[in-house]
Amino acid sequence: MKLATLRDGSRDGRLLVVRRDGEAGAPSSDAWPTLQRALDDWEAAEPALRAIAEKLDAGTADAIPIDPHRLGAPLPRAYEWIDGSAFLNHVILVRKARGAVPPPTLETDPLIYQGGSSDLLGPRDAIELHDPAWGLDYESEVCVVLGDVPIGTKAADAAKHVKLVMLANDITLRNLVPDELAKSFGFFQSKPATAYSPFAVTPDELGDTWRDGRAHVRVRSTYNGEVIGDCDAGPEMHFSFYDLIQHIAKTRRFGAGTILGSGTVSNAERSRGVSCLAERRMIETIDGGKPTTPFMSVGDQIQIEGFDSTGRSMFGLIDQRVVAAAGAS
Amino acid sequence: MKLATLRDGSRDGRLLVVRRDGEAGAPSSDAWPTLQRALDDWEAAEPALRAIAEKLDAGTADAIPIDPHRLGAPLPRAYEWIDGSAFLNHVILVRKARGAVPPPTLETDPLIYQGGSSDLLGPRDAIELHDPAWGLDYESEVCVVLGDVPIGTKAADAAKHVKLVMLANDITLRNLVPDELAKSFGFFQSKPATAYSPFAVTPDELGDTWRDGRAHVRVRSTYNGEVIGDCDAGPEMHFSFYDLIQHIAKTRRFGAGTILGSGTVSNAERSRGVSCLAERRMIETIDGGKPTTPFMSVGDQIQIEGFDSTGRSMFGLIDQRVVAAAGAS
Repeated sequence: MKLATLRDGSRDGRLLVVRRDGEAGAPSSDAWPTLQRALDDWEAAEPALRAIAEKLDAGTADAIPIDPHRLGAPLPRAYEWIDGSAFLNHVILVRKARGAVPPPTLETDPLIYQGGSSDLLGPRDAIELHDPAWGLDYESEVCVVLGDVPIGTKAADAAKHVKLVMLANDITLRNLVPDELAKSFGFFQSKPATAYSPFAVTPDELGDTWRDGRAHVRVRSTYNGEVIGDCDAGPEMHFSFYDLIQHIAKTRRFGAGTILGSGTVSNAERSRGVSCLAERRMIETIDGGKPTTPFMSVGDQIQIEGFDSTGRSMFGLIDQRVVAAAGAS
Repeated sequence: MKLATLRDGSRDGRLLVVRRDGEAGAPSSDAWPTLQRALDDWEAAEPALRAIAEKLDAGTADAIPIDPHRLGAPLPRAYEWIDGSAFLNHVILVRKARGAVPPPTLETDPLIYQGGSSDLLGPRDAIELHDPAWGLDYESEVCVVLGDVPIGTKAADAAKHVKLVMLANDITLRNLVPDELAKSFGFFQSKPATAYSPFAVTPDELGDTWRDGRAHVRVRSTYNGEVIGDCDAGPEMHFSFYDLIQHIAKTRRFGAGTILGSGTVSNAERSRGVSCLAERRMIETIDGGKPTTPFMSVGDQIQIEGFDSTGRSMFGLIDQRVVAAAGAS
């Protein structure tokens, strides 16, 4: 099942059930007008939503065309946005890029940060650039939406808490990172609003592309028309989503609708390209002594899409342009 | 105006308007059944809620007794919980306690972390202790609830975005902090669910106790029956809430219902006592070479209350006991 959120002027938008091809959909029933409300009551909502999906796929439901420009993030606001950094190749490269060493517990203790979640961007929303000196970068990620997660949940029991899978563009202001991390309280100003894919899909929709707590999708990043990355989000995700859930639930519980990210999808094989500019710049530095790719500028376009093992686009297209913010320097 | 949230089995509870004495209240109108819904539509909701408050204070509304044990946090879940560390005396002492130096930008660049917000505790909820080795500590804080905050908001324009003021117990697992901060991504496991005061009050309810973006309240912390701290939350809050808003809004916008905390209230004058055990332990170390106060144990009680300049209790009483978690070691 594929779900999306139509902007209707309200803060949470209107939940849509989407036909498998992503081209058309139908509003959810009034009992669950928003995705958050459905997640709050998932056991009851899920079968009702699936019934609509079945009719859509069978061509027996009234379907309205989906205009991705009218979609918000599947959750336009969420109660938590937690992002891991589970692709170790990314951690190693990015730390190298800022002259930092990976933590000694790199392979045993996941890196996680808590992000902002009251303002999440839709798949076609512009990225407002206030100051080019901040070093705007994109980060292509896979993420999951959780149901209620009890404290102490173990990885072996985590599968049932994963309700939906989607993509994220975890926009980062790279030049604000070093000073923030030096203060050791984590990212804040360096992580502006994150954007999400048009569709959030149930794990079963991914078939065997979803296994072992990983979405074995290809995540393709296209930057100004050039495919800059076509990375496998599967095997090199060192910590699976189940591992990440065990980590975050050690001392806390989570309410339905919590979004949990994989961190930047990254493969050691260079020909796969990159899911953020910081990695490319590091590779340039290793090869040529200095980075030659600048960070993003006004007018730039970043597109992010995820494909299953049969080549189907699963989450729709994140397609964002960088625009100058009003009053920006 | 004083507001509270009655637990009614739903995730967000039922919004109550509370009489000035905190003893009785009345449900909000059905248009704004929860505090989040009221904040989403504050311009319309506030006058309607104030009309109820006026009737309650005049004795002309039907009032039901307030049982603090039935209250949740004013926002049982929130879209953001952001905590500053604006009392520099706390930063200096706690860093000393873990052998770390304050950052060089201590006085110019606020320390801020993003906390979890899908699971917030009510004022009488037990603190579940899963492992005494984690070093359970309380932290008495003041916090504000924000309306929609545009990106780039300056301190001079921040006052209008502060809708409510309340207290928090920012529970901390002290012994999990050093390893997390060493990874530089900020607190996560070391910050379990935060608890909030029974009442969230509008700034005008505080009279001139609310000025310059600070709540000049006395925050009294009573630990196992002993007043362990009676700290002034005013002058030594180096960064005001307005300064903190300017800091967080540099690159992000915030949706209504974002909670922003002051960090542990802390005074340089020792006779004021402490708003967390870590500070007391550091003072013991300075004086006697080692801490003698242990972290919290099962059965311990922490009470936190805030008083205005006339000695009135403004936010009701946070009163929590530490209990052994099921399956805890």
